[in-house]
Amino acid sequence: MRGGTHLFPLRVYFEDTDVAGIVYYANYLRFMERARSDMLGLAGIDQRAALEAGTGVYAVAEVAIRYKAPAKLGDALTIATRIDQVRAASVLIQQRVMRGHEVLAEARVTAAFLTPEGRPRRQPREWVDRFERLMKEDGKT
Amino acid sequence: MRGGTHLFPLRVYFEDTDVAGIVYYANYLRFMERARSDMLGLAGIDQRAALEAGTGVYAVAEVAIRYKAPAKLGDALTIATRIDQVRAASVLIQQRVMRGHEVLAEARVTAAFLTPEGRPRRQPREWVDRFERLMKEDGKT
Amino acid sequence: MRGGTHLFPLRVYFEDTDVAGIVYYANYLRFMERARSDMLGLAGIDQRAALEAGTGVYAVAEVAIRYKAPAKLGDALTIATRIDQVRAASVLIQQRVMRGHEVLAEARVTAAFLTPEGRPRRQPREWVDRFERLMKEDGKT
Amino acid sequence: MRGGTHLFPLRVYFEDTDVAGIVYYANYLRFMERARSDMLGLAGIDQRAALEAGTGVYAVAEVAIRYKAPAKLGDALTIATRIDQVRAASVLIQQRVMRGHEVLAEARVTAAFLTPEGRPRRQPREWVDRFERLMKEDGKT
Repeated sequence: MRGGTHLFPLRVYFEDTDVAGIVYYANYLRFMERARSDMLGLAGIDQRAALEAGTGVYAVAEVAIRYKAPAKLGDALTIATRIDQVRAASVLIQQRVMRGHEVLAEARVTAAFLTPEGRPRRQPREWVDRFERLMKEDGKT
Repeated sequence: MRGGTHLFPLRVYFEDTDVAGIVYYANYLRFMERARSDMLGLAGIDQRAALEAGTGVYAVAEVAIRYKAPAKLGDALTIATRIDQVRAASVLIQQRVMRGHEVLAEARVTAAFLTPEGRPRRQPREWVDRFERLMKEDGKT
Repeated sequence: MRGGTHLFPLRVYFEDTDVAGIVYYANYLRFMERARSDMLGLAGIDQRAALEAGTGVYAVAEVAIRYKAPAKLGDALTIATRIDQVRAASVLIQQRVMRGHEVLAEARVTAAFLTPEGRPRRQPREWVDRFERLMKEDGKT
Repeated sequence: MRGGTHLFPLRVYFEDTDVAGIVYYANYLRFMERARSDMLGLAGIDQRAALEAGTGVYAVAEVAIRYKAPAKLGDALTIATRIDQVRAASVLIQQRVMRGHEVLAEARVTAAFLTPEGRPRRQPREWVDRFERLMKEDGKT
């Protein structure tokens, strides 16, 4: 975490690329989900335990993504994630895929919290507190 | 094709699902790309030949997708694809992931035509004609 | 089904390829699983219902695969699947990835039937009967 | 590297799992390829440069993998990779997917070096030297 922004490093492997020589467009969404899961883990939220206990699970409700420049095999990328807004049953998140200082893709993601049956559910109060703490770290730097 | 809309059937396999029991969100983009590629093939456009000849390749520049209901293992889905607008170097496309009459996800996709080096390039005139023919079929039904 | 062999057609899309211009090696396993699931469906076995009812699920215990020639973007492939042997709690399967008459890859797969908790379980008697019927069809042609 | 064995850590994300609640079987091959690529990188071999220069590329010719216990969401895994034998145009590799001291999967992989056109090619002498150095490190510890 740096100034309310979560930074997640990853490398591009063969599996991520396609015949056009660049990272396949759907795979940026895989990268961004890894980063969000890592951020939740840092916030002390155990998604597997929540799923197994029937508490609920985050599902993506909306993504708007712009691809600006392609990532390639072997690239060292950073996914920068910032929580924009915490609502009762969802979270708005901004994510950027960076190669050094270059922004390769940027996205707004809405993640909804759902019951195991798929109905919207309020996020646990404790989780909301943790998100708000992450967001406040933003003002400090 | 039906009334300017391309319909592409597919089934959901284990590879498409995740531990939450639903299709993983990035995989809808894989489904939509299959449908777009199939539509290009029907329009007589050979993407592999264009790539190998150095003519160019489509790359997605923008996606806005809303997930409304989850697809599950074994579901028979249809991807409905409609070309909205053909520009000099890009195409705007609307796509819906359907299970019967239910819309599971809907997206607007901008596909840019690029040189093998990744620079925007005008689409071959012949391809634009074919897209416009596909779009006009819309008015017939 | 033809002579005890299940034939499953599919096409290669961008998602399946990598920067080397060929289908990524792990994706052949995705193709083969699609074919096995389709074969189970034809045999009247509903994997999702079995999973939801807690009956059990097939998990792959062993794969030995040889890659002989690469598949490429746009290729029309056929997965040929043949049940070799049905044991109490597992099935031995032979699969080939074909492009026309050319064998691109061939594999032996052992699929074990497991309880939801992951312990080996005898396959439902009815399923074994169905597999044996599929195998016998072999002799007819 | 530890005693000639390359250790590669990774975490299991939603993308890796399926509706059965475990890592999808083909994804272990993705994990193993990441580890092999990382090992090549450590040996000073730049696969992307070799691909772009037309030198050649590794393609998997054979995999024999046994799945012993499933990995699950959030698991911290280690891929242990050891070069068994270096031939003129191929390398034999042993890989294990570990969760702590538990072996979840083990595989023998044959990677063939190919020209960009897909014909077998002798590996660059310098690379062979590097592999042999990696293998010799084995005896030291």
